Amino acid sequence: MKISAYIAASLDGYIAREDGALDWLSAPLDEPGGEDYGFRQFFDSVDLLVMGRKSFEKVLTLGPWIYGEKPVFVLSSRPVDIPATLRSTVGWRSSSPIELKREFDQMKLRGVYVDGGKTIQSFLADGLLDELTVTWIPILIGRGIPLFGRLEKDARLILIENRAFDNGFVQSRYEILPSKT
Amino acid sequence: MKISAYIAASLDGYIAREDGALDWLSAPLDEPGGEDYGFRQFFDSVDLLVMGRKSFEKVLTLGPWIYGEKPVFVLSSRPVDIPATLRSTVGWRSSSPIELKREFDQMKLRGVYVDGGKTIQSFLADGLLDELTVTWIPILIGRGIPLFGRLEKDARLILIENRAFDNGFVQSRYEILPSKT
Repeated sequence: MKISAYIAASLDGYIAREDGALDWLSAPLDEPGGEDYGFRQFFDSVDLLVMGRKSFEKVLTLGPWIYGEKPVFVLSSRPVDIPATLRSTVGWRSSSPIELKREFDQMKLRGVYVDGGKTIQSFLADGLLDELTVTWIPILIGRGIPLFGRLEKDARLILIENRAFDNGFVQSRYEILPSKT
Repeated sequence: MKISAYIAASLDGYIAREDGALDWLSAPLDEPGGEDYGFRQFFDSVDLLVMGRKSFEKVLTLGPWIYGEKPVFVLSSRPVDIPATLRSTVGWRSSSPIELKREFDQMKLRGVYVDGGKTIQSFLADGLLDELTVTWIPILIGRGIPLFGRLEKDARLILIENRAFDNGFVQSRYEILPSKT
């Protein structure tokens, strides 16, 4: 079972402006018919998506639900208001990464997609993220919601794939090595 | 005249640990006879190097002076103690980026290399950095001295070159577009 993040960031490491705005993402990652930067292939490889409450609320404002029938866990310490139309696939969890991993194992999942800054950071901090695909957008926005957070220990990565797109996006996929204990 | 930065950073955007340590740079960038990640070619293309006092003091601890006869300006609000052996090429400046650029123009330089987090950030913030080459090291160190700082305005970049090395280093070279005023 593999837990992966797939995320776009400004070159200075932000995944959104301070108010959550994504206007600086010049090419939307879900542009219909356009280049999807490997997103569909990645998305098809996972069985479940985990995101924080803020990411969930942001996604709801972006238009139609884009995750289809894929099961989604929304992480929040307090109950999350899930629209009725999504209740068959979207559930609320207040579990820690280690508790979630236990649940994924019980569900016999092969791949889990972890999304959102705080959620990615918590899986990284607990040494539970196996793979990270970051798409660097050629812009500096100067302030915002950071992709990475504090870590108690270094995390060493192995570069699996690196590619550049015509619009200047650079995408690097890394395997995250288990930390030495 | 082009003002460029060429710098290595951890994937989470740090150029050194909080105490300035570079131990996490698994392959030293100046390893004799080894891969130099394009450094020599870049270095030969510039006429002068600008660095902050902290970077200068760090470089002095790393062994023999590696910048040869290339003129170096060390930026500091207060006078910098320059070893006697370096006084023919190394000078102290307390100027702002705009004042430095005026001096570069008067000197008819073709290329200037700006090094060190704070120095790069001040040139970026004043819209005076023309090119940025960042070499992403495949590691998260969790805290340290950041490559990028706050900006009042977005800075848009154009990807000029992107390459991956066998050891997982990813190097991207960007042109920095003049900011809209």
